[in-house]
This record gives sequence, C-alpha cells and structure tokens, in this order.
Amino acid sequence: MKLSSKNYGDRTDYLYDVIIAGGGAGGLSAAIYLARYGLKCLVIEKGKGRSFWMQELRNYVGLEPDTPGRKIQKDATAQALQWGADYLAGFVEDVSDLGDRFAVKVKLGKKESIYPVFHSKYFIAATGIIDFLPEIDDMQNVYDYAGYTLHVCLICDGFDMWDRKAVLIAARESQIEAAFVMNWFTPYITVLTNGKFEVGDAMRQKLAEHGYPLQEAPIKRFLGEDHHLSGVELADGTIIEATTGLINMGSKYYNQYLKGIPELTWDGENLVTDEFCQTSHPRIFALGDLKKGINQVSIAVADGTLAGTKIWRNIRRAAPPRKWEENIVKT
Amino acid sequence: MKLSSKNYGDRTDYLYDVIIAGGGAGGLSAAIYLARYGLKCLVIEKGKGRSFWMQELRNYVGLEPDTPGRKIQKDATAQALQWGADYLAGFVEDVSDLGDRFAVKVKLGKKESIYPVFHSKYFIAATGIIDFLPEIDDMQNVYDYAGYTLHVCLICDGFDMWDRKAVLIAARESQIEAAFVMNWFTPYITVLTNGKFEVGDAMRQKLAEHGYPLQEAPIKRFLGEDHHLSGVELADGTIIEATTGLINMGSKYYNQYLKGIPELTWDGENLVTDEFCQTSHPRIFALGDLKKGINQVSIAVADGTLAGTKIWRNIRRAAPPRKWEENIVKT
Repeated sequence: MKLSSKNYGDRTDYLYDVIIAGGGAGGLSAAIYLARYGLKCLVIEKGKGRSFWMQELRNYVGLEPDTPGRKIQKDATAQALQWGADYLAGFVEDVSDLGDRFAVKVKLGKKESIYPVFHSKYFIAATGIIDFLPEIDDMQNVYDYAGYTLHVCLICDGFDMWDRKAVLIAARESQIEAAFVMNWFTPYITVLTNGKFEVGDAMRQKLAEHGYPLQEAPIKRFLGEDHHLSGVELADGTIIEATTGLINMGSKYYNQYLKGIPELTWDGENLVTDEFCQTSHPRIFALGDLKKGINQVSIAVADGTLAGTKIWRNIRRAAPPRKWEENIVKT
Repeated sequence: MKLSSKNYGDRTDYLYDVIIAGGGAGGLSAAIYLARYGLKCLVIEKGKGRSFWMQELRNYVGLEPDTPGRKIQKDATAQALQWGADYLAGFVEDVSDLGDRFAVKVKLGKKESIYPVFHSKYFIAATGIIDFLPEIDDMQNVYDYAGYTLHVCLICDGFDMWDRKAVLIAARESQIEAAFVMNWFTPYITVLTNGKFEVGDAMRQKLAEHGYPLQEAPIKRFLGEDHHLSGVELADGTIIEATTGLINMGSKYYNQYLKGIPELTWDGENLVTDEFCQTSHPRIFALGDLKKGINQVSIAVADGTLAGTKIWRNIRRAAPPRKWEENIVKT
C-alpha cells in the first residue's frame, strides 16, 4: 500500500517485520523478496537518489542498455507494491534501537513537515550515496553533462570513453589516482582540480611521466550541446578538448540516521557486513553502495535478495510450525 | 560475434581473455561486464538450461513478474553480443589447464559432431544445474505442470502456494525435510515418494505430528488443465487434491568438464568460491547455481559482475600503463 501524509496513521501502531530505508535497486529488491516471503515491510524513499539520476543503465542483465535508472526504480516500486509491500515518500531522520524493535522517525513533507514514527523488528539501510559534482557558478551547466557524457563510474561507463579525449575532475589529490585506472580505457586524459586543491610534486611527476596534463584553474563552464560534451573552458581562458570525462570527487553517504547505533562497524562511511549483508548488529542489514564492495545495480539487487532471505530465515525459524490441524490424530 | 560450425575456425587460433561456459543469467552478466571492460570473451551455451525453463521470473528487479526466463536469456545474449562478446551454441566437453592458458574442448552439433578447441587465459563456469523431475510413463504430463504450478524453488514461488493444497515430491527421505520450510507458505502438504524410496519411522512420526499425509504409491498422472494443477492420481487409484506443489528431488550439476582440475575445492557438487566468485584455482571462477549459495537469478547476475570485475582487475594490473605519448617530454 502506498502511504502518504494522509493515511500513514494506519501504520504507526503497527509492528513491521522490516523497515527499509531507501527505494533504489537494493531496497526494492529486498522489498520484493520480503513481500513474497509474506513478511510485512515498509520502504521509505527520499527521492532523487543515485539510481534516479542514472541516464542509461548499460550493464544490467535483461534491460535495454538505454534504460534510465528512474524507469527501473518506478517499475520495481510497482513490483514491490504488487506483492504487498508498503511504500512511503519520506526522509529517515533517526533510527532508535528499543531492544526488541526499532523506532524509525521519518520526515514527511518539505514544508510544514511532520515526523511520524514507525516500528519494525528488522531494519535495512539502503539509502546509498550521491556523487559530489564540481561546483561552478551555473550548476545547470554541470547537470547538462553529468550522467550523460561526463560519468561518475568507470565500471559502468569506462567503455564509452574508449580512446576518447577525456577530463578527470578530482576534489583532492588522492582522487587523481583514478587516472591510472581510467587509462585502461583511454590514455588521453587531462586532469582538472577546478582550482580547489594543491597537487604535490610526486603526483605532478607521475602525471608528467604518463603525459596527462594537469590544469589547476577553476572550471568556468562545460562546452557542448544536447548533453554531448565537446570541451571544458577554464577561468583562465584555456579550452580543453574532451568529449567525455570522469567526475571522481567522492560521495555523500546517506547514513546519518545510523550514527547513534553503537553496535555497527564502519569502514570509513561504509558499513561492514557479512555474506548476507548483515551488519555487526544482528537486526540491521546494509545494501548496495552503503556497504563495502562494488557500487553496481546488479550487486545492490543481489544484496536485497540476500538480506531479505536471511531475515525470512530468522523469522521463520523462530515461528511455530504450521500444522494441518484437521489431519492430526489427537492421542 | 555469433560463432557457429561454419565460422568458428576464425577463433581457434585465438587467445581469449575469458571463456565462459554457460549462457544463463550469470554467464551473460559476466560477458556483458567483460566486453565493456574491453576484454575478449566467448560464451558457450548448450541450450535449455534452468533459466530457459523458467516460466515466470517473479522477483527480479526491473522485469515484469510474468517475464519468462528465455526472454531474459535472449535479451542478455543480444546485450553481450552488442558489446563485443563472442557466442557459440555448443557443449563444453573438457577443460585442460595448460599452465598459462586453458584449452576448452567443445562439442558442436548433435549429429556428426565436431570438437573444436578454444583457448583462454581465464575460465568461468556458469553452466548451472537442472532439476530432476518425477519419472512417470507420460513425461509430457510432467512438463505440462513443472515450472507452472508445480514449482522447483520455494524462494522463487513459495508465495504462490499460500494456504493452498500442495504436494511435495521427493526422491529420498532427507528431501522431505523441505516440508518444514514449505509449511511457512502452506500447511496443507501431502508428501509423495512416487514409490521410489522407503521412509523411516522418525520421519513418518514427524509428518504425522504436523498432519501431513504421506503417499507412497507411484504417481500415475498429474491432473488439471492449461498448466493449472488440480490434483495427482496415484497408481493405487488414490486422487490427491492439490493446486500447487514443490518438486524437491535434487539437481543435475553441469560440472563434469571441471572434474579433471585438481586445484578446485568442492562442497558436494558445488564449487567453493571467494567473495569474487573465484575458485581455489586462481584463473577459474564459478557463478550462480554451480557455486555454493542461494540459487537465484539476481545472485547469478551479481556473480557475473564480481567475476568479470575481478578478472579485469587482474588483467589490467598486469598490463603496462597506457600513456599519452605525444605529451611526454623525452629527457
């Protein structure tokens, strides 16, 4: 059932089996599995996550390579609802562990927000990450290319850079190291700092040895049309020819709501999980980009399968067995 | 490129980066990733595997729940070919480890077969399993229901058995244990041995305590129409009312071609693998149902991502870095 600020009250006295924060590929896969195990779950989706922005999902078995992320998200939301999951557009503010259940506080509505609390036995964190983008005066100019010909993931889109002139935009020196993976796909790499950080001598020398120019002036604007990059203009007037590029500036992790749970184990901003995506808290699972591992839709979808199945096993094994009563001979 | 008995000769002198045995969801996912990493791979598909027989793939993110397995297989084959993978309809007979490469012997054609040998640096085993079905005189009668309303996987289809009268068909006593998982979905379970094995006293008592009848006569035929089961008729004339059921008779593993590789570690018929689906042989990977773990399309697809990415990393790290030669100042 789709919940909203109008009807959520039906569910605030309810104990869900599982609340899933995040309605991307991982969270929705978990919801589809949980619903088909007959468990009651609620997906809380804040909107506009990483899969929403994905323009073309090139490498997922069964979908055309021009399928946008928002289509898979829309279709999988319908799948989850069809099998009986609940779904709410909202932002998870806080998760409190009450011992036998979680209290999940959700912000509903951007203006005059309300903050209902929902309860569940298990909790799945699947809110993912969002890539930082270069900051320039006209952000619309960035959005015109980011996710189209200016990529954020080499695994997804390195192939589409093959032997093309490309920029690599970093936010700190260590992120320039991506050039030495990106060069598998193209050696024609110009590195841009957008005027935001200093580059040390060792990295300068490494770039020079590979022939990759380093440009340290701020970016003025991206050039091109119809989402097809043709170059980058810098504030000092330099124009860099490039038809593709990689933005490698790190990511914002949507995991703040978990920071008050002491049992969790972190590796930087990633949650450490076992082979079923269970964190070091036995009733909290983490999927997709929030956990350690490769950030791919296929991995998030499998994570949803694994977490959903493990939670079902736990709940099933703790439940009394269902008998065919009329057949049992009372002695 | 699609290979056949007409044109395979173009590739027999060729060293592939990877040969993938099996063109189901896992093998094709690996092929899509490998091709998009710019690696040369060959998929060898024998046809009519488990995903081919799947009538409705209910729980895969992004596909309508009535999508048949053969559609996802056809579409993903086109995806892999589009990105540059080679594809051959054939049966992998044998894999020999020549130290720095594998020699993969393939049977082409059912009549007047020929046996070309292909070579690769890495090998991926993704040939999966096929479920054993109950043997009766008229096997077409079994095929009319198996995969439709008579299922082979509780994770996939348990939901569709909810509170319905169901049969559980086993091939040996230990497989009857599935009744005590299946009863999460329905308690109205009749257990059938198809007259093939004896059941001990402890199991008889456990079934009686749950109220699940045990029928030990051979199956004469499945009743119903248009793939909708209505019951099962036994050789002794008994008619069991049931609209669904689970066939839990074990599986045939397509892994014979690997039995001559001494480095592999087996758990029964499953290959033991690490978190990237690498077996204990550093250049052999195993995906999906062949490896230990949950047998689901979503898992096989992620396995292809993991294996493809790990192989790319290995090959990339061993390759000399590509430089932008014209920019390098010779000193």
